[in-house]
Amino acid sequence: MSGKPRVVIVGGGFAGLYAARTLAKAHVDVLLIDRNNFHTFTPLLYQVATCALDPSAIAYPLRTIFRKYDNLSFLMGSVIDIDTEQKHIVIETQAGQLVEPYSYLIVATGTVTNYFGQKAIEDHAFGLKELDDAVILRNHILSLFERAAWVNDTGLRDALTTLVVVGGGPTGIETSGALYELYNYVLKNEYSSVSPKMRARVILLEAMPHLLAPYPERLRKAAKKQLESLGVEVMLDAMVSEVHPDRIVLKDGRSIRTYTLVWSAGVKTSPLVEKLGVDLQKGGRVPVEPNMLVKGKDDVFVVGDIAYLQDDKGDPYPQLIPVAKQQGILAANNILNTVAGRPMQTFSYSDRGIMATIGRSRAVAWIFYRIQLTGFIAWLAWLFLHLVALLGFRNRLSVFISWVWNYLTYDRSVRLILATSETDEALTEKVVAEETL
Amino acid sequence: MSGKPRVVIVGGGFAGLYAARTLAKAHVDVLLIDRNNFHTFTPLLYQVATCALDPSAIAYPLRTIFRKYDNLSFLMGSVIDIDTEQKHIVIETQAGQLVEPYSYLIVATGTVTNYFGQKAIEDHAFGLKELDDAVILRNHILSLFERAAWVNDTGLRDALTTLVVVGGGPTGIETSGALYELYNYVLKNEYSSVSPKMRARVILLEAMPHLLAPYPERLRKAAKKQLESLGVEVMLDAMVSEVHPDRIVLKDGRSIRTYTLVWSAGVKTSPLVEKLGVDLQKGGRVPVEPNMLVKGKDDVFVVGDIAYLQDDKGDPYPQLIPVAKQQGILAANNILNTVAGRPMQTFSYSDRGIMATIGRSRAVAWIFYRIQLTGFIAWLAWLFLHLVALLGFRNRLSVFISWVWNYLTYDRSVRLILATSETDEALTEKVVAEETL
Repeated sequence: MSGKPRVVIVGGGFAGLYAARTLAKAHVDVLLIDRNNFHTFTPLLYQVATCALDPSAIAYPLRTIFRKYDNLSFLMGSVIDIDTEQKHIVIETQAGQLVEPYSYLIVATGTVTNYFGQKAIEDHAFGLKELDDAVILRNHILSLFERAAWVNDTGLRDALTTLVVVGGGPTGIETSGALYELYNYVLKNEYSSVSPKMRARVILLEAMPHLLAPYPERLRKAAKKQLESLGVEVMLDAMVSEVHPDRIVLKDGRSIRTYTLVWSAGVKTSPLVEKLGVDLQKGGRVPVEPNMLVKGKDDVFVVGDIAYLQDDKGDPYPQLIPVAKQQGILAANNILNTVAGRPMQTFSYSDRGIMATIGRSRAVAWIFYRIQLTGFIAWLAWLFLHLVALLGFRNRLSVFISWVWNYLTYDRSVRLILATSETDEALTEKVVAEETL
Repeated sequence: MSGKPRVVIVGGGFAGLYAARTLAKAHVDVLLIDRNNFHTFTPLLYQVATCALDPSAIAYPLRTIFRKYDNLSFLMGSVIDIDTEQKHIVIETQAGQLVEPYSYLIVATGTVTNYFGQKAIEDHAFGLKELDDAVILRNHILSLFERAAWVNDTGLRDALTTLVVVGGGPTGIETSGALYELYNYVLKNEYSSVSPKMRARVILLEAMPHLLAPYPERLRKAAKKQLESLGVEVMLDAMVSEVHPDRIVLKDGRSIRTYTLVWSAGVKTSPLVEKLGVDLQKGGRVPVEPNMLVKGKDDVFVVGDIAYLQDDKGDPYPQLIPVAKQQGILAANNILNTVAGRPMQTFSYSDRGIMATIGRSRAVAWIFYRIQLTGFIAWLAWLFLHLVALLGFRNRLSVFISWVWNYLTYDRSVRLILATSETDEALTEKVVAEETL
């Protein structure tokens, strides 16, 4: 052993990764643990799901970052327990269970899809939180279209090409817009020779009376208008009450035949936070001090989407990537401060605003919460900021070329149905069984 | 119905695809059927398996080709029966079984991996014939390395990073070379901080006393020398006699601990050829007339790897892509000839030679069976010819950029462990079970 303090970081998302990078070359040993061997640039997941980007374009192998620094190491596995008394964590890996001690722990495990305890939704809906989710959704939609092309029953065919997205936040808006474009620019033309009458519906459901809750009224309306101008059917005040493999029912009794329900209506914190043994806040978030230490601990930091910290107005900081990045960096710096005998710093959020894209030349942006942009200008800003935020020159190049290509050709080139996962196979079986009835 | 003759093509590989393209805009209706919704550029499969290329870079969505032509349509499914009396085929699709009639049938289903009836090999070995195979192998190797990094037992660790390739043909040579490069340029550096002693072995086994049987002596030797200069251990006269999940045994009694056996030692024709009701030739190939009609039929053509046709010297044409392409085009033209009342043409193979690549700056080529090239020049020729042979400008651009990137950076960027298929999960379970014993 080197005698250097050992920092263990759980989670290679934005918070964990930026914490690790901050500790590179410092006089500490760092171990980062993640279930995947790559970091995922989550804002572009929906573009993988809709055939616009390759999975590898938004994934960055974690070891690539780490090989440059001798004091960083990576372990692929799932952390299943945290023992803050013994100061170690337990990890489930392909090589069996490992126990790894820490001097300082940074927990940055992020959120998972929240199905609000509804088993039927969990069984039948598609989440969009992980790279695997995106590939599964892509396979599923392409498979349904392949099937729809050869179905004579009009009702069934329309059901197969009806795609429902739940949740009027940025993910729901971006996904529904991109799904409609996938249909409108690509699939419509490719299936026309077989089924001239094949058409798709993309429906966005939002339980509240407006989209994009955190945005000002003007941008909410602009987002809705732009989505509708694209072809997406936006239903507000629409709550899902029942979910079946082949249809959903809304609270007002309306029924929609569909085999595709994309669920982006909520997140909850990853289950690991319960192992910290502290009382959790709303949404399962962990209360932290402004220095990112878990309340009552002096060696366990919690950062990113799972941290609960109030801003000056008493509102919790939002579950956004810039917050996660900045908290990860702060926790890492506070470990270095402690090791060096310096006082810790407190979190101060540098916030440049929020934005969401809707489709080709369509977006909304609220820059510094002062400037409201819509349409082409907002879209260009979105493209530019996401491009520079990508990790790794190769990913940036790959995404840039794909975007230019997609823009010029109206194409979506990554239309591969690869080995279906169990989820999708199970669903296909359900679909087939359904029709046999 | 249009009254036009209906040509059904089974298989979207090189033979089937070039047949379909030849019939584009002609006065026939064409239906092409494939299990996948894309055509695979198989010569580069090993680069997907070794993290150098994205799956989408070597896959071309079949509908993209077809949307340009009104008379072509595509159906994703598996043909399970051929009735040459009733002139129809039976297809298993996601929409159930379909029966599709034909006026002319072109069967181009290609080959599958031949395990020579050995169940143990089939269960434990990795084939490399399909895009799914490549992704499964990539996941598997990356997972083993992640695991090896945290294993303390030296013997087990070495076994996890010992990769065995069986078959000294082009696929085996290319795969073993690329596997060694993946280790040597990438994995070696990325795991060094954890396990400085982690090292990989790549072993190529060939049952015959030389590699590359169809090549002249000088090129065979050059290939072996180049492989060995790279770091691959080449074992000739080496027959596999036993395969276990964690080791293989050679006929001479030598045992090699490994969890990765890539099987590129042989192919056999796809099982569908048995439905044609004709006596099959060696390797299960279907005897055809020089016009590509199945012997004794006047409306069923068989082309590509599954066709058995002798050249002037009495040898069957080799199972190579140029043969498949040219036979597919000929069968299509002979259908047009028949429809127009013209006589059919016979097959005449335009053969420009053979080549195989070994790794960075290493290859062998036998141009027009006269000029023998080795090393850098042969490698450049290989790169150029494969680049221009790729379908679609976007794939060409994507492969070109990846190659330049890989060459300049010595990197292999597509190192993602994505949702493992059942095959790989089963194997992982086996590996874990093995260790527990």
